[in-house]
Amino acid sequence: MDPTDAEAACFEAGIKFGTLYHQFAGTPVSPESAPSLERAMEEAIENQPFCADCSVDVLADELDTTHDYTELTGEYMEVRMRIEYGDRVVHTEMAMEDGYPLMRVVDVSER
Amino acid sequence: MDPTDAEAACFEAGIKFGTLYHQFAGTPVSPESAPSLERAMEEAIENQPFCADCSVDVLADELDTTHDYTELTGEYMEVRMRIEYGDRVVHTEMAMEDGYPLMRVVDVSER
Amino acid sequence: MDPTDAEAACFEAGIKFGTLYHQFAGTPVSPESAPSLERAMEEAIENQPFCADCSVDVLADELDTTHDYTELTGEYMEVRMRIEYGDRVVHTEMAMEDGYPLMRVVDVSER
Amino acid sequence: MDPTDAEAACFEAGIKFGTLYHQFAGTPVSPESAPSLERAMEEAIENQPFCADCSVDVLADELDTTHDYTELTGEYMEVRMRIEYGDRVVHTEMAMEDGYPLMRVVDVSER
Repeated sequence: MDPTDAEAACFEAGIKFGTLYHQFAGTPVSPESAPSLERAMEEAIENQPFCADCSVDVLADELDTTHDYTELTGEYMEVRMRIEYGDRVVHTEMAMEDGYPLMRVVDVSER
Repeated sequence: MDPTDAEAACFEAGIKFGTLYHQFAGTPVSPESAPSLERAMEEAIENQPFCADCSVDVLADELDTTHDYTELTGEYMEVRMRIEYGDRVVHTEMAMEDGYPLMRVVDVSER
Repeated sequence: MDPTDAEAACFEAGIKFGTLYHQFAGTPVSPESAPSLERAMEEAIENQPFCADCSVDVLADELDTTHDYTELTGEYMEVRMRIEYGDRVVHTEMAMEDGYPLMRVVDVSER
Repeated sequence: MDPTDAEAACFEAGIKFGTLYHQFAGTPVSPESAPSLERAMEEAIENQPFCADCSVDVLADELDTTHDYTELTGEYMEVRMRIEYGDRVVHTEMAMEDGYPLMRVVDVSER
């Protein structure tokens, strides 16, 4: 069967998470450059269709600064997004869980 | 509300598409290296949870070879995936449509 | 033989260009989000060792906006960097030449 | 001054390392998929100009398999390249050193 609006909304939400993570993982990041990276990530993803809001928190205090900077990985970021598709709105988030950057759908509702 | 199995399956499908596209877009590719890139993309994505099958076709005949190689972009690839989550199976695909690499859910069914 | 300071400086310059290009190529970008992406790219690369200055110009006026946004590729950016290593300074730049994003060493001098 | 052939060779070598690392870091990888990823990385980089040989070893035995797969990072790969430019040949390598994926020029010689 064709997807429902809610299913299509969840598909779109997943695309945004995969994009954000795999576009930006590996970026050289330091506590000083974390804010500009957060902003660029948010605005890049908000370009994509159906993405009503994207909020990225790079955990500057937890960055490994042994070599002054490190590479962005899932353990250093928390992300929330709101996707709107047809008459549905989906809230999603990414955060570490058991050593793994878990992306999940938090809520599916009518707009 | 929490997502249904079908919605979670669609979310997972979206993650795989975003991952595949933004991990590998930009890779230097030529007709000769297209097969090894296809294989690596398929096997990389099949590592991710709930991805039962991933099939990538890099359109070797269409690659711009003015400079011997080019960078992988959406116009040079076609992708199909089967995602299984709980009792649901989702078929998805990516192909060019109107100059844009469109990712879409083709079918949502019971397994 | 071991590299001279000038050769090591050129090697470091090349690393930065490869990093910048392949980390950020594919990022969804629009005229509105171009400034935040420029800033994030500059600050990310300046984290890397020996990079004294990195300047990125995303050519907002030339972005394809048929679908509101496009993906960042070499045709949409101009980059300059100054690398300092030992007693040498290297100036490099990237710009389109004959349809190809050419990265080149502009000057190698004593500091 | 314009770069010498040796300096241009080192610049080209650096580009390849930055490309390889930042194109492929973050790729989902398991012991099973490591060989296809190695091959794709080698062939992708060998497309680039002046790259006479690229050899990638993904350290399959060291991959974190707690969640079956992990993301490719510098700690899981060793890379060697031979770059030829004009009458010069440059050997380079990347391996972990003190917790950091160090890329370095091993030798600069006449061809």
